[in-house]
Formats: sequence, C-alpha cells, structure tokens
Amino acid sequence: MNPLTTRIGTTLPLIQAPMAGAQGSAMALAVGAAGGLGSLPCAMLAPDALRAELQKLRASGRPYNVNFFCHQPPEPDAARDAAWRAALKPYYDEFGLDMAAIPSGPGRRPFDAEAADLLAEFKPAVVSFHFGLPAPELLARVKSWGTFVMSSATTVHEALWLQEHGADAVIAQGLEAGGHRGNFLSMDISEQMGTIALLPQLVQALRVPVIAAGGIADAAGVRAAMALGAAGVQVGTAYLCSDEALTSPLHRAALQGEAARHTALTNLFTGRPARGIVNRLMRELGGGGAEHFSTGLGAVTPAFPLATHAIGPLRAAAEKVGSTDFTPLWSGQNASGCKSAPAAEITRALAAGFAPHKP
Amino acid sequence: MNPLTTRIGTTLPLIQAPMAGAQGSAMALAVGAAGGLGSLPCAMLAPDALRAELQKLRASGRPYNVNFFCHQPPEPDAARDAAWRAALKPYYDEFGLDMAAIPSGPGRRPFDAEAADLLAEFKPAVVSFHFGLPAPELLARVKSWGTFVMSSATTVHEALWLQEHGADAVIAQGLEAGGHRGNFLSMDISEQMGTIALLPQLVQALRVPVIAAGGIADAAGVRAAMALGAAGVQVGTAYLCSDEALTSPLHRAALQGEAARHTALTNLFTGRPARGIVNRLMRELGGGGAEHFSTGLGAVTPAFPLATHAIGPLRAAAEKVGSTDFTPLWSGQNASGCKSAPAAEITRALAAGFAPHKP
Repeated sequence: MNPLTTRIGTTLPLIQAPMAGAQGSAMALAVGAAGGLGSLPCAMLAPDALRAELQKLRASGRPYNVNFFCHQPPEPDAARDAAWRAALKPYYDEFGLDMAAIPSGPGRRPFDAEAADLLAEFKPAVVSFHFGLPAPELLARVKSWGTFVMSSATTVHEALWLQEHGADAVIAQGLEAGGHRGNFLSMDISEQMGTIALLPQLVQALRVPVIAAGGIADAAGVRAAMALGAAGVQVGTAYLCSDEALTSPLHRAALQGEAARHTALTNLFTGRPARGIVNRLMRELGGGGAEHFSTGLGAVTPAFPLATHAIGPLRAAAEKVGSTDFTPLWSGQNASGCKSAPAAEITRALAAGFAPHKP
Repeated sequence: MNPLTTRIGTTLPLIQAPMAGAQGSAMALAVGAAGGLGSLPCAMLAPDALRAELQKLRASGRPYNVNFFCHQPPEPDAARDAAWRAALKPYYDEFGLDMAAIPSGPGRRPFDAEAADLLAEFKPAVVSFHFGLPAPELLARVKSWGTFVMSSATTVHEALWLQEHGADAVIAQGLEAGGHRGNFLSMDISEQMGTIALLPQLVQALRVPVIAAGGIADAAGVRAAMALGAAGVQVGTAYLCSDEALTSPLHRAALQGEAARHTALTNLFTGRPARGIVNRLMRELGGGGAEHFSTGLGAVTPAFPLATHAIGPLRAAAEKVGSTDFTPLWSGQNASGCKSAPAAEITRALAAGFAPHKP
C-alpha cells in the first residue's frame, strides 16, 4: 500500500505538476484518466473560469488536485516600480511601445475566502499550495472537506514548518524544478538543494509522505526518487510539450532544442525566483554582476507578482516577430523528457518507474 | 559485468572522492581494502610527500586513483590582490595580524611534467583530473601507462568535450557536491545542474561510462544514481568524519550539526567556486548584494588559487580560539551520511546500494 495513493485515491503516486499559463483541465483530465493525479493551476484564473474548469474535473469522477499560490499581496512601491520601468524603457523604445499603456492589477491571485467559497461546492480530493500555506482559518476550511493538503518545501526547515502547520504531504522541490521556487521562510536561494540532497533529508525528518519534484523526466527518474524514499513524484516539465499543454509553439521549440540545456533562476518575469530557459531579458538584466557568476537573478523588479505587468507588452510584441527574448520559458533543468505526445502516453512512460525494476 | 569495475579492477563501482586537505593515503587504503576505489588528492602535496603516499598505495597491491587539478596557473594581478587584502584588512586588524606576513606561492599545483615523471614510476590504475584535462602530450603520457583517466563535467557540453579529448569515464558532478566545482569551459554557475538532472543527460549523451557525484550519502543515494544510469558513484562528504579523515574537530562538528543544513558555493577561499558550510567570511564578503539573493560568491578575490594565502593566517588565528569563521568547511548539500566510523564501514554501508533492492 502506497501511503500517497491510499490517501488521494489514484492508481499511481504520480502528480502532474500544476503549471499556470501552460495547462488547464484538459491536461489534468488526461493524466487522471491514465491513473495519475491531474492538477489545475488556479493562480491566473478568474472565478468564472475557475468554476468552469472545476466542473469539467468533477465530471470525470476522478480525484484531482487544485493548486493555489498563497503569497501575501504586496504593497505597491512607486520607487521600485519606477526603477523597473526605467530598466525596461530601452526595450519599450526598441519595439515602439508606450509605457503608459502598461496594464495594472495583481497578475496572480493568492488563495482567499472567495476561492474557498467556490471550492466548497466541489470539495476537491487534493489541494496543493505554493509559497507556504494559507491563513489557519482558511486552511481549516479546506481540511474540513476531507481534502488532502500538500505544499512545497525547499529546505528541511520549511518542510518541518509545513508538517507542523497541517500539510498532509510535503513536496520536496529540488532546485532542478521549473517555474517558481516555493520557498517561503527564507529568500536566500543558497539554502536550497538539489533533489538528490533535499529529498532524503526530508524523508528522514518528516512523518508525513514526501513527494519528489525537480529533475524527474522519465521512468529512471521516478525510480531514483522512489529509491530515495519518496512516497510519490510530481512531474511538470515532461508534460510541457504534451498535446494537452497550452505551451506556445515558441516555448515548445525552446524546450526541445539546445536552448533548454541552460536554464537559470530569475525574478525578472514576476518578482519571485523561478526557473526558465535563459533568454535575452535574463542575460541582459539578470543581475549577474560579479565577474564570472551570472545568476539570472535581478534585483530591480517590483515585488511578486507586480513585475508581470510591464513584461506583458514586450513579450507580446517580441513573440509577434517570432522571438522569445521576453517570454518566461519556464523549464526544469532536465527537459529531456519533453515529448510531443498525449499526456496519457507521457504518464504511462513515467509510470514504468513504479514497477519493480528488472535490470 | 559493470563497465567501470571491469576497467578499474575494483570489486565495487564506488570511488572515494579525492578531498585535498581532508585525507591522504590512509583513507584511500581503507576504502580500497573494502572493495572501493580509494583516491589520493595531490594538488597540495609536494613531490616528496606525493612519492611517500604513492609508495604506501602501491604496497597495497590494489588499484587506486591519483587526483590532480589541471588549472592554468594565473598571472599575479597586483590590483586584484590589493583589493582582496583591503577586503580582509578589518579581519586582520580584529585578530591583530600583520598583512606583511602573508605567505606567497601557488597554493595548489596543477598537473605538470614533474608530476608525470613521478607518476611514471607508479603507473597508477586510475588518474582523475579536475578543471578539465592536462595538455595533450601530458595526457598521452598518462594514458601510455594503461591508466584509466577520469575527469569531472558540470554540463553536457563539458562532458562531450572530455569524451572527445580522451577521458575514459566522465564524473557527472551535480551541483550538490562539496568542494571545488570542476567546471572548465564556462564560469557561469547557472549552467550547472543538480545530479538528478545532469546525470541522465550525460548518460544519454556519452558513450563512455558516467560516474555520479553530488548528494549521494547512503545506500539509497547509490541506488538512485544507478537507477539513473550511472556506471558508478563518487562519494566525498560521507567520508569526511571517518576515522581516517584528516578533517579537523571543528569541521567535523559543523558537518554533524545543524550548520551543515546550509551550504553555499563560494570563491572566497581559493578564487574558484567551491561548496562549503556557510560561515562568517561567506556571509560578510559573499557578494550576495541583491536584496534577497545571497549567492555566497564574492567577486573581489585574486584568481584561483591565489586567494588562499591571505586566508591562511586568519583561519589559523580563528581556529586557535575555536572559531570556524574563516575556515573552508567543505561539504556537499547532503551531510546526513557523515558518520564517525571507519572508512571501511562507510564503504560497506554505501555498497548495499549496489545489491538488488528488496523492497
């Protein structure tokens, strides 16, 4: 009996990682039908769209995971915003864009009472959070539905905090993972570890199941994670070129080409560090600074998620001429699993890693 | 038949990582007697000391690995050296030390003709290099003895280069690994990957055997690496508290305590990035700079290995009063395997990871 599948009700201890902007219910349904746990990323969904997606997932009759960010919405900071706009001004000029037309708004919504009201109608089997956990009363509400709650940890300290504050499972997010780092107790990237170092230390430290995430791209990766004591795995990047993904053709080409060999953490697209394929914006504003050490982390952005707005028009203009210079090309460090195939086929290939190994 | 043990002549495809300053022939002999491949780090050994160590290893009648750095010795740079001394001046004042008494010299020797002359008497079964490979004529000489040559890669690009230039096996050095990064084609740390991402990509790209290094601390880690396609593993940190290690009591205490949860890459101790437990020097001169992102990488040091000299007196003075504020506390990201035990016992525990797994 696997401690994870017993609780979440799937055949496989395999979670399709929620990837806001790159997938919706179609991918979650396909993975669910293949025996895994499909996930719906909700951070960028307005209430009506969220409801429509949840209705489709509920109709499948299978368990599914609903994922939310739970960051503290930032206070606007005029000085930081001005510095950010000044840094982007030359690019706006290059494309003949008008800075006055930059849209406003939060960009990414944290989990709140309104979202909880909506979820209450659906009582999903699983809810996962990124950037910690919501306020105790909100979390208690989610748990009152019998929902299994997961969240990501990037350090032993964060994992222990999540267990203590009510997480039913902890996702060990290794540094290899694509997209946003889930760190929430410390912003010091140097505290974070690769999967092969983080995962066994969480397994040793926690009593709740630990799910491995980061760098797992095929059955061998699944087998490695399970050998390290994981109760299950969460895989994102390998699904980014699946038929059901909303990934753009430009992003797909980057994932399946040489460019994907070089990813980096950058805060330039949203204000928080996230891993993506290195592109012009990251190279030019990446804030490496020191002679030999480019980190891809810039310092000039507004707080998460407020950096998003001013990037949008640049991204759109560049993509119109076939360029990914300003596109967040989210990817983990191991894009070798990015096949153009149905998500169900990718799920079955990964699932071979759970079978007893015949060398 | 394992492709590595067949070639190097050991029972186990397990290499004890060479760790200059932390071990000599005693550890290599103990690991060799237990069926692994012991390594002798040579970068800090004068010719007479090197000969004495090699005589002990040869007397065992077992295969052993001799490890050398092969960096380009730097041109002294007065301006960089002055900036470095200015950065350290407050610490010298704090300890009442005299900057005029800083010793000079290379600090770490690269592999050269003199070393090759000495090795020719011993014709070791294995020689491993760090920072690439030596010049073609030197490498050809080593290979003419029938010696098996290995070197470390931190990217797919470096691995392909090593294979093309004559390496018989490539060590996939994941970002988790302790001590010096082996990168030699690019100084951009953001190109480097965690073991679970790097290893399978090298296995896929190379025809020579790939050895996994970084984050492997116990039998489960060995099992994970082998599941990812490694022909063998190289383990360092787990041996640092062994009976045969020369690791200082202060360093041992750090490795076995909470401090080891936070390592970082730093160039402050030698001029090249290396992973160690975060301490005062790294925190204060680490060059994080950006608001939230401390990298532990400073930019003010002289070129490798010239940063070493000025750190020496500070380290000695601090250690005298029981402080590791200026000590390079080399460690990988997973120090959970650091047992106070004979190296043979640690080797046998790791070796369990090669046995068929009984779940």
